[in-house]
Amino acid sequence: MKASLDFEEESFFQGNTAILTAAIRKEEMIKSIKESPLYSIVNPRSIAFFGASNNFLRMGSIMLSSVQELGYEGKIYPVHQKEKQVRGLTAYRSIMDLPEVPDLAVIVLPTAIVCRTLEECGKKGIRHAIIVSGGFREAGPEGAALQKEMEAVARQYGIRFLGPNCLGIANPYIKLNPTTLTAEGPPGFVGLASQSGSFITQMFDYLHRNGMGFSAALSVGNEASIDIVDCLEYLGVCPNTKVITLYIEGITRGEAFVRAAKNIIRRKPIVALYVGGSEAGKHAGRSHTGSLSGPNEIYDGVFRQCGIIRAQSLTEMFDYALALGTLPKPKGNRVIIQTHSGGPGATAADACGRAGLRLPPLSAQTVEKLQPMIPRTASTANPLDLTYSLNSAESFFDIPDLLLGDPNADMLLAYFLSPGIFVDRILREMGVSEEEIPKTRNKMLIDHAEAFRSLVKRHPDKPIVGFTYRSLQEGMVRYLLDRAIPIYQDPERAARAMAAVLQYHRVRESIATSDV
Amino acid sequence: MKASLDFEEESFFQGNTAILTAAIRKEEMIKSIKESPLYSIVNPRSIAFFGASNNFLRMGSIMLSSVQELGYEGKIYPVHQKEKQVRGLTAYRSIMDLPEVPDLAVIVLPTAIVCRTLEECGKKGIRHAIIVSGGFREAGPEGAALQKEMEAVARQYGIRFLGPNCLGIANPYIKLNPTTLTAEGPPGFVGLASQSGSFITQMFDYLHRNGMGFSAALSVGNEASIDIVDCLEYLGVCPNTKVITLYIEGITRGEAFVRAAKNIIRRKPIVALYVGGSEAGKHAGRSHTGSLSGPNEIYDGVFRQCGIIRAQSLTEMFDYALALGTLPKPKGNRVIIQTHSGGPGATAADACGRAGLRLPPLSAQTVEKLQPMIPRTASTANPLDLTYSLNSAESFFDIPDLLLGDPNADMLLAYFLSPGIFVDRILREMGVSEEEIPKTRNKMLIDHAEAFRSLVKRHPDKPIVGFTYRSLQEGMVRYLLDRAIPIYQDPERAARAMAAVLQYHRVRESIATSDV
Repeated sequence: MKASLDFEEESFFQGNTAILTAAIRKEEMIKSIKESPLYSIVNPRSIAFFGASNNFLRMGSIMLSSVQELGYEGKIYPVHQKEKQVRGLTAYRSIMDLPEVPDLAVIVLPTAIVCRTLEECGKKGIRHAIIVSGGFREAGPEGAALQKEMEAVARQYGIRFLGPNCLGIANPYIKLNPTTLTAEGPPGFVGLASQSGSFITQMFDYLHRNGMGFSAALSVGNEASIDIVDCLEYLGVCPNTKVITLYIEGITRGEAFVRAAKNIIRRKPIVALYVGGSEAGKHAGRSHTGSLSGPNEIYDGVFRQCGIIRAQSLTEMFDYALALGTLPKPKGNRVIIQTHSGGPGATAADACGRAGLRLPPLSAQTVEKLQPMIPRTASTANPLDLTYSLNSAESFFDIPDLLLGDPNADMLLAYFLSPGIFVDRILREMGVSEEEIPKTRNKMLIDHAEAFRSLVKRHPDKPIVGFTYRSLQEGMVRYLLDRAIPIYQDPERAARAMAAVLQYHRVRESIATSDV
Repeated sequence: MKASLDFEEESFFQGNTAILTAAIRKEEMIKSIKESPLYSIVNPRSIAFFGASNNFLRMGSIMLSSVQELGYEGKIYPVHQKEKQVRGLTAYRSIMDLPEVPDLAVIVLPTAIVCRTLEECGKKGIRHAIIVSGGFREAGPEGAALQKEMEAVARQYGIRFLGPNCLGIANPYIKLNPTTLTAEGPPGFVGLASQSGSFITQMFDYLHRNGMGFSAALSVGNEASIDIVDCLEYLGVCPNTKVITLYIEGITRGEAFVRAAKNIIRRKPIVALYVGGSEAGKHAGRSHTGSLSGPNEIYDGVFRQCGIIRAQSLTEMFDYALALGTLPKPKGNRVIIQTHSGGPGATAADACGRAGLRLPPLSAQTVEKLQPMIPRTASTANPLDLTYSLNSAESFFDIPDLLLGDPNADMLLAYFLSPGIFVDRILREMGVSEEEIPKTRNKMLIDHAEAFRSLVKRHPDKPIVGFTYRSLQEGMVRYLLDRAIPIYQDPERAARAMAAVLQYHRVRESIATSDV
């Protein structure tokens, strides 16, 4: 990286922080998750809930209902001026009436009474809060003044909080989802720190469909007390988080961000989507959270300097996360492609080429060993195009096993055409009854999938990736996705994700050696 | 376009055709579909089928089974040396025994007997064939000699054929699918000419899931008699085809290709995926069909010269096709984004910006009219961020209707968060029974979807596009996709598809004016 670019970045961020009059904090990185101001917010044993009522159409009620729906096992104390019970839980007229000091307050109240409520929380002894309510800095000068007041209250009582104008957090590992939508799918390894609340509540289903789940998702809102750097540090030490994803509209504490990211990158990858770089994205971000953005080039430089992988879309960010969270470190960029169809093989080859991956020829020994298993029409170039399977069990184990054993191969990219659709037809032709077909087919698919999956352990240092044009929710592909084999909807996405894994390990090594 | 590039392209193609000793034909474009050598191949009234038997595991049997499965209504004559019946159809020992001269022969036989069979077809009077069998030019010098023999037979009898080494065609409009996989989903408007057979048989389900279907899909294989230019010309005059998609590994008749494409582009858009440009893609293509590819830059130049839109992946090609086949011509590049979530709005804004689309401010009149319909927290910038819906009926009709009526708007991009998931929770809270919930929810979703859809007729000159991160198969989104409203899985894909529509109309105008 050139010195001049470093200089530009620094001055950009200093100007930015000066505008926002937020001092650059110089404290050391946190060493354990419990040191984070987010610890009690993401892992509370008890929650005071402000703004939930028995009218479901209130945002607070919806959020409390999500918490109940997922089955959070901690204590919940709804605070309500009139109701004795809220959603079946004993309600308290005042925070002062609670039998204990809860770990966390969730505040979903009208703007005007938020500061007063936070003060009452402070008096009760609460030190952590999520302030969902909007109408603060993002709403203009009056709101900004209210936010200053809130910050003063928090300082007075030593309260650290997420928000205002945020959706808080989701921590599927303790079945805690105080967001607006139902959590779907099991917990996973993707940590998200987001300057948009939507992405922590609207992506459960997306991640599950694509083979992932959140370890923890954090929405920062206006970042009055806890900002995206704090979230980054939290996820950096969060044991459930294998990959950190960041949705960024603009970073305020640039220097601290770079320091934290550089530190974390030695242990786990970070992928960022930054939308403030285009004129259109900048305006959208400003009216959304009031954040200050900078030109794409600056952010590109910052990300590069820290070793953060930049994604251009949410799809790409999570595509990269899937590969980074499931694949071992590859030894190099040489990919062998296994296909039984020429077109998908050629598109995969082209995608690999454009992503900077190389397609080595198969070694002579591999070709020799393959011969008895492949049809006469097959091509033993790379892609290995089987044209069709002589024996489907071999194409899911013996053949990819040989390819992975090839000294020329660093990674395997395999095409999946959901053999189930074909098996059904064969079984039907054989006269198997319609009720028996799914059982027989599923048994076969699971056998094949388990054989394929066993390759991961047999070749622990060679990433195995799949692609398909069929639905990811079908038979074998879904089965493998659920067991940490990354399979993508398009070879382009697979190849770019594989390249992201290479990029991460290269950057990690260069950071480890260059900058101790 | 610079003269030097034109020159390079011409010499590249001339060299290429010289190598392949295929003369550049100078005849005129076809004017009607019946003039195409493909007409009887894509629209046969009767088919002689070689290679199907009562053993389902033979490729010919599978292909005949696909034909029967989709319900082709023409006559099918299986030819088989031993069987009296094949798959329930009367079989004929020899082609000579058929009671009529069928429009088409489909040949799925071992390489060695293909030429002889073609000759018998010629003697019978058959003038059109699909030769599925492989083992010809793609298999080396011996195969190439066999292919020459086949070409000589065809010339002798005046037979035009697709292949060899192809999967033939699919024409869902006459329920004809002689390919290896089951056809799924209704017919559509996407014409595909492909140098890979896989893509004509493996994409039915993909297209349906994404809101499309084939009008006709043509696999050219080794292009011994009918090549991709013939297919392009056919699709150019095919009335069911609104958009032409091309999967290209290498073009032989460059000059004819350019002429045909330039001509067609005045009437309908062409999108091409070319995979022979990267080193990896080139090798994959060569071993697949033996085609000769050229550098990316040459193909970029050729595509640009013809007005063909180049896609980088199959996903992108069909994304563009969806928009091009459903959207009217936009007046300009100004997009208004409607969202109820800040993050998705900002990612959409950023994606539009990067795709070369502009985000105009809403006009003062629009903002004034919106005020009574939107929450206090809403942003009336562009994206219009409702934050939440005061009235969901308004957000699917009145609000987008106002946005589309704004003189600053050329197009609308709307975020969909499958309101069904939320409605279910509300109904459950209201005590509606689990059996009643889907009925009530679906009625509401259909009402909203129909209201939204009616905007297309109310604003016939303004493209309306959606995006979502939820599954395209859910409630309202699926309903709209089935009714020609393009909705994409990511705003990036939506924005790029909208830009492709603009690109097409710009190119069409410039071709219409510059080159008569």
